[in-house]
Amino acid sequence: MTATIVTIGDEILIGQVLDTNSQYIAKAFDRIGIDVHEMISISDDRNHILDTFSKLQDNTDFVLITGGLGPTKDDITKKTLAEYFDDELVSDSNVLAHVENLFHKFTGTKAPLLQTNIDQALVPSKATVLHNEFGTAPGMWLQKGGTVFISMPGVPYEMKGLIDTVVIPKIVHDFERPYIIHKTIMTYGMGESLLADKIADWENSLPDFIKLAYLPSPGRVRLRLSARGKDKQVLETALSEKIEVISKIIGDVIVGFEEDKTIEAVLGGQLAQKGLTVATAESCTGGKIAQIITSIPGSSKYYKGSIVSYSKDVKINNLGVSEQTIAQHSVVSAEVASEMADNVRKILKTDYGIGVTGNAGPTSDDTPEEIGVVFIAIATPNEIIAERFNFGQPREKVIDRAVNKSLEMLQKEILKNV
Amino acid sequence: MTATIVTIGDEILIGQVLDTNSQYIAKAFDRIGIDVHEMISISDDRNHILDTFSKLQDNTDFVLITGGLGPTKDDITKKTLAEYFDDELVSDSNVLAHVENLFHKFTGTKAPLLQTNIDQALVPSKATVLHNEFGTAPGMWLQKGGTVFISMPGVPYEMKGLIDTVVIPKIVHDFERPYIIHKTIMTYGMGESLLADKIADWENSLPDFIKLAYLPSPGRVRLRLSARGKDKQVLETALSEKIEVISKIIGDVIVGFEEDKTIEAVLGGQLAQKGLTVATAESCTGGKIAQIITSIPGSSKYYKGSIVSYSKDVKINNLGVSEQTIAQHSVVSAEVASEMADNVRKILKTDYGIGVTGNAGPTSDDTPEEIGVVFIAIATPNEIIAERFNFGQPREKVIDRAVNKSLEMLQKEILKNV
Repeated sequence: MTATIVTIGDEILIGQVLDTNSQYIAKAFDRIGIDVHEMISISDDRNHILDTFSKLQDNTDFVLITGGLGPTKDDITKKTLAEYFDDELVSDSNVLAHVENLFHKFTGTKAPLLQTNIDQALVPSKATVLHNEFGTAPGMWLQKGGTVFISMPGVPYEMKGLIDTVVIPKIVHDFERPYIIHKTIMTYGMGESLLADKIADWENSLPDFIKLAYLPSPGRVRLRLSARGKDKQVLETALSEKIEVISKIIGDVIVGFEEDKTIEAVLGGQLAQKGLTVATAESCTGGKIAQIITSIPGSSKYYKGSIVSYSKDVKINNLGVSEQTIAQHSVVSAEVASEMADNVRKILKTDYGIGVTGNAGPTSDDTPEEIGVVFIAIATPNEIIAERFNFGQPREKVIDRAVNKSLEMLQKEILKNV
Repeated sequence: MTATIVTIGDEILIGQVLDTNSQYIAKAFDRIGIDVHEMISISDDRNHILDTFSKLQDNTDFVLITGGLGPTKDDITKKTLAEYFDDELVSDSNVLAHVENLFHKFTGTKAPLLQTNIDQALVPSKATVLHNEFGTAPGMWLQKGGTVFISMPGVPYEMKGLIDTVVIPKIVHDFERPYIIHKTIMTYGMGESLLADKIADWENSLPDFIKLAYLPSPGRVRLRLSARGKDKQVLETALSEKIEVISKIIGDVIVGFEEDKTIEAVLGGQLAQKGLTVATAESCTGGKIAQIITSIPGSSKYYKGSIVSYSKDVKINNLGVSEQTIAQHSVVSAEVASEMADNVRKILKTDYGIGVTGNAGPTSDDTPEEIGVVFIAIATPNEIIAERFNFGQPREKVIDRAVNKSLEMLQKEILKNV
């Protein structure tokens, strides 16, 4: 079984909006064992939409469509769907009641609906309506030939609500699917080429139903194994065996396994489980470490906060970094990072502290270090570890690598000390 | 002239990696007046790649390909390109020297290259090599029929380097293109439906060469006008006239115009220009306001830092919020937001302070307010303004809306007070 994701909207094609919907839908389908064959972004153009639909019909089982359902003139997905299905738009009384309800809640009045609001309740007569809890544009489920067309709004949280509570449950209920299991091996500190060289024989020994992918990112390579088949037990056994073998070959660079988990989620789980707390003192990362850590629901259990010291004054006055240390070593130094980490740990009364200072660029501050150089320190109850990195350019890469690296360093300390 | 963007990689189709390359390429092409007709993500599969290439050939002028150029077995773009062009792979001596150089720099040794490194220098003999400054996989430029195929690595900063310094300059030099001008009108506080209703006549009066799009996001709607044609002067005059007319109709909700600028960039420009500084005190947004502000290069001129107080203790001990205020009004209250904003302004010695406290969910803290409720306060040299919002659910929407709203509120104060 395959699915194809179609996002509709000129704003995507001119780069004004980043399409994050496709990834969300892909993850959801992957979890229920349906392959996403292709993702396509097209314009709000009648011919382009019709042409795309007819190319996909009978070539894929599900077409997941997002976008073009708004109340305004440039949104034409609904009427184009009706045209493709040789259908007419009719008003759905349940949707109308829902629209009315949201409208009154939002405006705080009992004012009558505008025509554009009323039109939100129009759906093709052949469509099964999918309830959109978070917005006024309903989802729609239509079938033609061997293909189900599912249309959803482009607003991410409305689409997510529909996928999670309506679309996936309906597919799981109505269709039989194969098993698909992913296992990702996280390696750290060995380049992609050398790694590939070392595990070449092992890679060649993989059976057809197990696929390997290399996912390199700054400083680490993840190896993703995907097994697919009808018998879950067979898949799991085969994966375990292969992982046991590779662990003997490159065990020294394997830092863990993940099942679709980010480092901040893994780290959060470890901190929560061990009852440990952490605080951060950030300079060049500008709050991004805090933001990543707090993107995990429940992070308030282990994360107390951050002092983002974007200026030297704040480092001195609010983080207690000594003026002398700065004068002697410059703000971009192991010494300053160490004081930041240790002081924030004391100031916010936590078990661990992260301190980061560096030159993200494009211009460098008052320091002898070149652009791209970042010092990261981890303060633990027993010691302070500081490291120097050169993350190169550009700015966004430096920031992202510094964020990742600091979480990795913290994780190492947690695994070591407890 | 049209372009089609093709991203290759199983990791995209299973949702493990978010494709941000397409947006970057789309923006770059939009700026030079070339329409992106479609974006497609496909798997690391020979047939899928060949099939996609042959469908695109002669139907689009440029095919921009990213991904599948790594040194490992699952990366097959290069050899599939060679197959599609009936070509063989040959070693390019310049690329080989560059790979060698990077390898020695990275490993810090003069060790001999691995075979996988040496293979990075292989390119189809018919290809023009595009120099990849930031990595070992070269870009490639190949032509078949009326279509240019441009292959780039999938690593975002390597792709960006190629687009900015090689691909776009070469296209601008080699091809003539029409003008395309976008103008985006930012409106604030009026729903999409009502807005559409008010400007319906104006919208109908737009000439064919000007296209209008509604870009709604929480709390605001951007109206994007795109004009395309051979005579730049004609486009600019027509756009100015239409904007003058719409300003008379909905002038009260227009807060500004942007040319591809985000609110944090606009705000940063205003702060820098006026020599004003700002600090933030964040609770439920967890450092995201700091991160967004510092995503702008040069933000250290006007941004001093943040105290991210994710726990009550930190609010009391480090931000100086009074225990009594919390006991009386709860941590999620206008009073606490106000103290946070005003105290961080004093502690970090800035002109403005932002204070944010709320329930992002999924569970609520010890407060009578429901999930989704956020209080935002702006402290200025003269006063403190606090507002209550209900941003609903889910968590990520609450955080994003709170970040946007706090920047908007700050911008209003800056425009008002100076």
